[in-house]
Amino acid sequence: MRYYALWGEEGKRYETNQSLYDYIYRELGAPEKEIWDGYYLFDEPGKSDELYSILKKCLPEERISLDPMERISHSIGRGSVEYISLLEGKNLKIVDAVIYPREEEIECIFKELKNIAEIITFGGGTSVTGGVLPSGKRKYSVSLDTRNMNRFELDERSMILFAGAGLKGPDIENNLNQRGLTLGNFPESFLYSTLGGWIATNAAGQESNRYGKIKDMLLGLKMVSPSGKYSDHPVPAESAFYRIADIATGSEGVFGIITGAWLKVRRIPERLYYRAYMFRSFSEGIEALRQKFVYSNFPIVSRLSDEKETYLSLLTIKEGFLTNLFKRYLKLRNVLEKGSLLIIVDDKKISLEGGVNLGSMPAKLWKRTRYDRPYMYNELLRHGIVAETIETSVPWNSVIDLYKNVNGSFRDALRDNGIKGMIMCHASHEYITGTALYFTFLFYSEERREEYLKILRDSIIKSMIYSGGSISHHHGIGKYLRNELKEYKGSFYESIKMMKNYFDPDNILNPGVLE
Amino acid sequence: MRYYALWGEEGKRYETNQSLYDYIYRELGAPEKEIWDGYYLFDEPGKSDELYSILKKCLPEERISLDPMERISHSIGRGSVEYISLLEGKNLKIVDAVIYPREEEIECIFKELKNIAEIITFGGGTSVTGGVLPSGKRKYSVSLDTRNMNRFELDERSMILFAGAGLKGPDIENNLNQRGLTLGNFPESFLYSTLGGWIATNAAGQESNRYGKIKDMLLGLKMVSPSGKYSDHPVPAESAFYRIADIATGSEGVFGIITGAWLKVRRIPERLYYRAYMFRSFSEGIEALRQKFVYSNFPIVSRLSDEKETYLSLLTIKEGFLTNLFKRYLKLRNVLEKGSLLIIVDDKKISLEGGVNLGSMPAKLWKRTRYDRPYMYNELLRHGIVAETIETSVPWNSVIDLYKNVNGSFRDALRDNGIKGMIMCHASHEYITGTALYFTFLFYSEERREEYLKILRDSIIKSMIYSGGSISHHHGIGKYLRNELKEYKGSFYESIKMMKNYFDPDNILNPGVLE
Repeated sequence: MRYYALWGEEGKRYETNQSLYDYIYRELGAPEKEIWDGYYLFDEPGKSDELYSILKKCLPEERISLDPMERISHSIGRGSVEYISLLEGKNLKIVDAVIYPREEEIECIFKELKNIAEIITFGGGTSVTGGVLPSGKRKYSVSLDTRNMNRFELDERSMILFAGAGLKGPDIENNLNQRGLTLGNFPESFLYSTLGGWIATNAAGQESNRYGKIKDMLLGLKMVSPSGKYSDHPVPAESAFYRIADIATGSEGVFGIITGAWLKVRRIPERLYYRAYMFRSFSEGIEALRQKFVYSNFPIVSRLSDEKETYLSLLTIKEGFLTNLFKRYLKLRNVLEKGSLLIIVDDKKISLEGGVNLGSMPAKLWKRTRYDRPYMYNELLRHGIVAETIETSVPWNSVIDLYKNVNGSFRDALRDNGIKGMIMCHASHEYITGTALYFTFLFYSEERREEYLKILRDSIIKSMIYSGGSISHHHGIGKYLRNELKEYKGSFYESIKMMKNYFDPDNILNPGVLE
Repeated sequence: MRYYALWGEEGKRYETNQSLYDYIYRELGAPEKEIWDGYYLFDEPGKSDELYSILKKCLPEERISLDPMERISHSIGRGSVEYISLLEGKNLKIVDAVIYPREEEIECIFKELKNIAEIITFGGGTSVTGGVLPSGKRKYSVSLDTRNMNRFELDERSMILFAGAGLKGPDIENNLNQRGLTLGNFPESFLYSTLGGWIATNAAGQESNRYGKIKDMLLGLKMVSPSGKYSDHPVPAESAFYRIADIATGSEGVFGIITGAWLKVRRIPERLYYRAYMFRSFSEGIEALRQKFVYSNFPIVSRLSDEKETYLSLLTIKEGFLTNLFKRYLKLRNVLEKGSLLIIVDDKKISLEGGVNLGSMPAKLWKRTRYDRPYMYNELLRHGIVAETIETSVPWNSVIDLYKNVNGSFRDALRDNGIKGMIMCHASHEYITGTALYFTFLFYSEERREEYLKILRDSIIKSMIYSGGSISHHHGIGKYLRNELKEYKGSFYESIKMMKNYFDPDNILNPGVLE
């Protein structure tokens, strides 16, 4: 059987300047010719009558699927480990069934499956941390797709939305936008990812400067666990121990199925302003951002690329008269070769000191292509190049140290292992106290891809945490970072396991996440 | 022995217009003559050599006190139940020792006391919910005063403060203010209450519109529990399960001793503007506030008193030519008898529609006396009048219903029990999604005060929760609301108990809070 394994719409290609790809292939020693068509070939998996008849006790037929294509698409996320497996045509664990329950059917499912299956909650399947991979620790693996948890109830006077966990970005925003409202969570996966997934990973979107992480939007949660059904009170604030929202946010689906949430919505800004600046270096750009944020000025978007990412961005601009003029201008201002690009979107007029003002175009261009970056990775994968993204958050005072340490560790790891790779970074979620740094690294190898990936990733994460950063800013933990999580949380890790044990004593929910 | 039992500085009186008190005494049928001098007489409590010698294993002598006055002052908070006991000269449980450990001494204390004593963490002793009362469930009660956890370390570039749990409001603000910074938490108890207490109750201050609740200021916590020592990472944000801060905020000292926290600080506004408005009714004022907040305009302070509280505020203005002029103006504008007063403090010029503009004076007056209200209750207590405050938060759409229901329930409870009382309210912590309502009720009775207090409080809390409000907005749960907490949390309550059991398996920390 044949499964289209790349990001997004089948066959859609990312149109850009060829010189961008040429540069990357040359730097990484990757072939100019495609070595993969993006399809994964797999044998038709077996179907279990036993499992089917168990599921039928809780669900009507139309909410159970044993279809191979449904199952394969629910057995992988969009992480680099998965992509390597798909590219290499490795054998993958495939879930035995996909179910689409309603909230009231979940308790029955827990009861019936508790001795026989693991349950992996599936939202949009865009996890980049292995969050939806079956662990194979039980006889059966069942993917629980949340799409039928799709309530949408708006209390417009109170600016409170109750939304089902299975609603995707556009389901929420299109509906709110008609009323002049927005939730404000725009991750790169926006078109596919779900509210439940955002909560389970404590996601942040591209406008988090203004709207916060999903955690900041949550008034309360509903969750169904093997141990029972739980609901918070949808109130603006309370002072009474912790809420379900406090522990289930970032919980990776291991405590229960998050079925819905009460969320704070906001008015859409009346007008947006766009502006880009070029700084002489990433450090100078970081300092300009810091100066803005410590004074509590929060532009809706502020996104600063380091010199490498800026250089690649400039390569995407098609050659021509205007481009040459633009580049001559940058050269004149001494920022062509090593500049660091900052784009800002805000609902107030934008002013910033210390950078070369590039007008509004680069920011508008970013906005128009804000969800397209994964399509660029598709192209690279077709040439055998693996891309991985790793993100952290770090106090202002340690940003540059962390940045340098990560770059140094990555270079060392490349050298020690004789791999060709490149790393770039942007700061894209700013706070009064610091910023998130989002690293992207690329490498090419004809063999041992998974091993090298792990080595490179480990070098970065160790360096990040050593330098005072968080283990993750908004991608979550999934199954890739389980060992790192344990170390990061220290003695507190045991309390999380104890909590897991309380909500899910038989360990049927996403058992690969916690040890 | 003789203990001064009223709020604040010994003997300090609240100077205001006598007509305010005359009105209250008349309405409640309370005596014009003082019936209490504010002192509590108690017998010298015994001293335990056994306990002292156990404590000496962990602490030097200067950090252990068996002194009766120290002990009595650590055995009561500032709640109405305590005040009734003090006023009536009832026997009170008095802790057997007060200790002032450093962070590194806490583990030893847990070890030595685990079979013999309860430990009640004590910050400023300003709990209004019985949070510091000994339960008497163990042979000994020990009050653990946090004052020696007093680190103050500022990373000014990152706007991150590490502060010890024992620091009081002025310790934090005075130090920050010198650098043009503020934490921004200004509860009425500000002069006495501590960071640790703010965290343990998830407090909110008078400027929470802008700066949020203490929860919103927390980057992470340090906590020492019987089960171990824990620390969060001081990062702007993370995406990796929950933090200690997520579960210990609002935890009432039952999971561990919060020893310190990393906090986000802010720049002090360069200039403040003050403005007051009078609305024709509380409902009209609420709607004006709602219109402001749903558009994400957050004045630093906005405080709307209902008609009763407004009336009492006007009574505090001394009679005279200007006052008469002012009242004639209000009468002319039709808002003298039933007006609802809104005061606003902001760092931007203030404009608001629908209210009668009263200039800046009332708001400046409020600011000058912002911590003085408890002294007014002192005066009432001297006349046998009990004051209780109960607060909730509620979505905009339910504010007025909740307000009416609470008033109705209170009136019914007064009537059914033949008690004289009055109730008033203000909205003082606004959100995009709703507001906190802060109810104050007063009643006078020569007998059965505690019983009547409970009846009146229950009538309000039931009505609040029934109407979609939270059990508490910023006072916390303490020991007064333990039964209500259980009902409020529903099935989720058990997970909190399980958490308690994990961190404190021998139930030595504040055992009266959870069942």
